[in-house]
Amino acid sequence: MADFELIKSLQIPAETKIVQLVMDGLGGLPRDLDGRTELEAAPTPNLDALAARSQLGLAVPVAPGVTPGSGPAHLALFGYDPLKYDIGRGVLEALGIGFELQPEDVAARGNFCSVDVNGLITDRRAGRIPTEMCRELVALLREIKLPGIETTVEAVKEYRFVLVLRPTAGQMLHANILDTDPQKLGVPPLPARAQDEASEPTAALVNEWIAAAREILRNHPPANSLNLRGLAKDPGLPKMAEVFGFKPAAIATYPMYKGVARLVGMDILPVAGEAVEDEVETLRAHWDRYDYFFFHVKKTDSAGEDGDFERKAGVIAHVDEVVVPAILELDPDVLIVTGDHSTPAALRSHSWHPVPTLLWSRYGRPDGVAEFGERACGRGSLGAFPAIDELPLAMGNALRLTKYGA
Amino acid sequence: MADFELIKSLQIPAETKIVQLVMDGLGGLPRDLDGRTELEAAPTPNLDALAARSQLGLAVPVAPGVTPGSGPAHLALFGYDPLKYDIGRGVLEALGIGFELQPEDVAARGNFCSVDVNGLITDRRAGRIPTEMCRELVALLREIKLPGIETTVEAVKEYRFVLVLRPTAGQMLHANILDTDPQKLGVPPLPARAQDEASEPTAALVNEWIAAAREILRNHPPANSLNLRGLAKDPGLPKMAEVFGFKPAAIATYPMYKGVARLVGMDILPVAGEAVEDEVETLRAHWDRYDYFFFHVKKTDSAGEDGDFERKAGVIAHVDEVVVPAILELDPDVLIVTGDHSTPAALRSHSWHPVPTLLWSRYGRPDGVAEFGERACGRGSLGAFPAIDELPLAMGNALRLTKYGA
Repeated sequence: MADFELIKSLQIPAETKIVQLVMDGLGGLPRDLDGRTELEAAPTPNLDALAARSQLGLAVPVAPGVTPGSGPAHLALFGYDPLKYDIGRGVLEALGIGFELQPEDVAARGNFCSVDVNGLITDRRAGRIPTEMCRELVALLREIKLPGIETTVEAVKEYRFVLVLRPTAGQMLHANILDTDPQKLGVPPLPARAQDEASEPTAALVNEWIAAAREILRNHPPANSLNLRGLAKDPGLPKMAEVFGFKPAAIATYPMYKGVARLVGMDILPVAGEAVEDEVETLRAHWDRYDYFFFHVKKTDSAGEDGDFERKAGVIAHVDEVVVPAILELDPDVLIVTGDHSTPAALRSHSWHPVPTLLWSRYGRPDGVAEFGERACGRGSLGAFPAIDELPLAMGNALRLTKYGA
Repeated sequence: MADFELIKSLQIPAETKIVQLVMDGLGGLPRDLDGRTELEAAPTPNLDALAARSQLGLAVPVAPGVTPGSGPAHLALFGYDPLKYDIGRGVLEALGIGFELQPEDVAARGNFCSVDVNGLITDRRAGRIPTEMCRELVALLREIKLPGIETTVEAVKEYRFVLVLRPTAGQMLHANILDTDPQKLGVPPLPARAQDEASEPTAALVNEWIAAAREILRNHPPANSLNLRGLAKDPGLPKMAEVFGFKPAAIATYPMYKGVARLVGMDILPVAGEAVEDEVETLRAHWDRYDYFFFHVKKTDSAGEDGDFERKAGVIAHVDEVVVPAILELDPDVLIVTGDHSTPAALRSHSWHPVPTLLWSRYGRPDGVAEFGERACGRGSLGAFPAIDELPLAMGNALRLTKYGA
């Protein structure tokens, strides 16, 4: 799908509401004990009951066998072909901290790192310095001035920060520039290297900034150097309101996901804390004002990344207990429960495995399988399907697409 | 699929015969009583027995979530990508009344409408005037003469009619012309506006006809004006004989389906009456002369559109009893049983739900599920597959495609 022209030509106004509940890294792998995945092992009476009334399938985020990053994986859930719409990491990081990126800005993700006396990298994450230290260092880096450029440096978390260059003299910046991070230890950081002629002046500015920054950091071990990654500009994606006719809102607690949501034109709703209970409160408070909600749960992914099967299953069980009934009580017209990708505890990382997905609507055709899990979804009538089909399917089920042709 | 170049390059002559049995609007939705769809509720011993020896799946007519009209849905069954091959509404309407459209004709769908003293539209459907009144008004409109044009006006139903312009002086008409229907009330109809220079003379002719027609209709409220929509010419589709190497025939009782079949080059076989028994008689009588038969059953769709679950299930049961054994008795090499789209009685309209489909061949790989229904097909080995794949699959099973590559 991802044929936006088709969807745009068919979308019709409706009062119906769609909720897409995304448990980050939901998909898992079987444990030795009993062959169950995290989702299968978690007690999920509410999801199982919902599954019995839903269609099941396995969503393929990008392409078979391909492990997606968070940006592409979320774009796919939002209906945007991640192979067509590319968001640079720098842009994701900048949007993620709520930075109001302008079309002419160039953003980069910064990583503080440790180097030895010879300038060779000894720790690509500077010993995961506390966020507070990151903030202090970032304050120092704000002193660096570049000609004709307004520079913004913001702390993100631990060793991560964002750098944004904004031209103030009418010049055009270009961001076809490679990362400085060599992705290994024992070698020095690389210079920023332009990949086309247009990007050379920008690369020169970036290298000037890096040199000044390293001079400042020299006496601040373990964060005595830095790398820049994912230099990029706002890709100018079509907005959800235009493509799908939604009034869309995002409920998320982590910057990255709010950032991607903002890029496709969602309103980012305030959440009081980091708990899913806080997110549920936000959903309730804004229920009447939007017709599409992206509801993001982060901790499934974090637990998977930590290799903690039990904790991941626990997060899923908690979502089943707290989030699912609360959403159903609001009486949506369509509810999708899915993940952006798999993060099996066994792999401690994102993976290529397709993602268990459930689509409930009052006009659905249930598979009649009272279980939400990888194997149940593998036998579901949605089959192994591209994740970008989720929202068009939801729109059909929400009676938001008119007939194609006579 | 729909890669005609590939199919054309691989098709080989064979004596094998393919039957595609299309129950219009076959797919349904579960009823409250027992959670069964129309197809699941209908007693279908013959289809169930055939299913046990077949592959099952769910055919997606156009795209996930998208509800197809009859034209695009049938094109898909015939292997033509409906997003690539577009039949204008005017052409479909003309085909629908059995009009023998020529390649140079321009056809439009006409809607009688009501306007107030200021010429502003008050009812886009003229109060849904009876078909008899439509016929009387159409008779008046036949008096309008255009220079160098043979004009045909035919009543369709209620407020709907067809207008066809046929050039008689060797000139070429072009139909890249926008609808006159503004799609809202309180505004006047729009003029016919050419979207390219070539279409301007045709648009001028159309506007001349409209002006004369409105003059005639002025004193015939509520049908005191009209709009034209979907001006179009025969799209000149590649023919089935060329693409698939078939000698193809259509057995259908309703004009629209015969019309679409004619567009792709099928011979339209005569059917003595409207009953499926008559269609079976036609199939028997012409069995030796063709190798691909499109066998269309209309009444499943009509019952669905009427919201009549029982009647729809009854039509399916009747097809199971009368049509399926008769086809099997003729000993085809491949039999596909499918629908063009879903028309759940619960929705009283076409819907986006994929269509239960069964493919039997003597070289098939049966799923071994002795039931033909939505849920059984949802677990079938064909999965959720594009409807345009049906004929290439049938050709493979009919040993009509040679090896690709060495």
